Amino acid sequence: MDRHTDPAARKADGKQDTICGCTPETLLRKIEGFHGFIAPGLVIGALMVDWIQELMDPMAEADAVVETCHCLPDAVQIFTPCTVGNGWLKILDWDQFALSLYDRFKLHGYRAWLDLTKLQSSPPVRDWYMRTRPKSELPGEVLIPAILNAGRDILSCAPIHMIRFHHRKKKGEIGVCPVCGEAYSTRVGDRCSSCQGEGYYQIVEP
Amino acid sequence: MDRHTDPAARKADGKQDTICGCTPETLLRKIEGFHGFIAPGLVIGALMVDWIQELMDPMAEADAVVETCHCLPDAVQIFTPCTVGNGWLKILDWDQFALSLYDRFKLHGYRAWLDLTKLQSSPPVRDWYMRTRPKSELPGEVLIPAILNAGRDILSCAPIHMIRFHHRKKKGEIGVCPVCGEAYSTRVGDRCSSCQGEGYYQIVEP
Repeated sequence: MDRHTDPAARKADGKQDTICGCTPETLLRKIEGFHGFIAPGLVIGALMVDWIQELMDPMAEADAVVETCHCLPDAVQIFTPCTVGNGWLKILDWDQFALSLYDRFKLHGYRAWLDLTKLQSSPPVRDWYMRTRPKSELPGEVLIPAILNAGRDILSCAPIHMIRFHHRKKKGEIGVCPVCGEAYSTRVGDRCSSCQGEGYYQIVEP
Repeated sequence: MDRHTDPAARKADGKQDTICGCTPETLLRKIEGFHGFIAPGLVIGALMVDWIQELMDPMAEADAVVETCHCLPDAVQIFTPCTVGNGWLKILDWDQFALSLYDRFKLHGYRAWLDLTKLQSSPPVRDWYMRTRPKSELPGEVLIPAILNAGRDILSCAPIHMIRFHHRKKKGEIGVCPVCGEAYSTRVGDRCSSCQGEGYYQIVEP
């Protein structure tokens, strides 16, 4: 087995030739194309997805959970079929740098996370994540190679069984708001959220 | 002015030659590539984005709000630079079929929505959205051409000024959970969400 096919060899080495089936250059280009810039967190997210995908049955229909709304949702959306809009990706606003993929029928999967106990081996990544050094001292030219070089050595990954958040969200019953006349989900009440005072805009008169 | 450059002519006609700069064929291919299948709601979302982009200053840095987590987030993510992970797209879980783009400095923008009063002109779209006919009677081969044919005729669009949800979300202070040892946002409490009992998984022993 060479290091492409032997996960153990690849893990011991840290750095990988391909991540999510891409060369590092292609990976960074895909990230920039979708996310707008090469965010360090997204590169770490790609490493997480790559590790989990290697462990999972490639035939499984995998849904995803991310534990932060920063960066990681885009890693899942770029490198798996799961998106927010198709309902296969759920986002927990916990600011934890972890994500899971799981077989949506068997509810078995894997969770990968940035492991603080392993971050000592990569001071730039540690200082960036814990914000112990100013951003200006940790530009992309320093951080991105440090992350690619560390590879899975800064992560941990464990098998999990889903006990919550694994149901796909159904659309609510559709009604017509008696105030504004727009369609809305009747689960929010007897009028739409905006007409309940939750609205985020004022109409500008032309 | 031909119908490409004259919004009024294009609107009166309904059907458009290009949507978000794409031919209908390219549009559908992009939707399928990202979303996994050609969801009718995403085609409508693309028409909304297209209309708003035509009205907005092309130099404006536009952030987005969608009022449902179904389909519309992906329309924004495919056809604008805004994504969930870069924080430029906010998702309100209201099940209202509407989205807004706005200048993030001036807070001025436009909201487009599926207009029930106009849906009578397109019975397949009306029956699909209001669920008054079973899905099996409204396959994509019927719905997608109906939507493309209707174009903006089933939508409304209005200028808005943002009064909420326009602040970009900052990452919370990062701490170390005293129970599990993972990094987490201290805004959620004295331990991470999972260790507070919100966890979505059980670790599987190997």
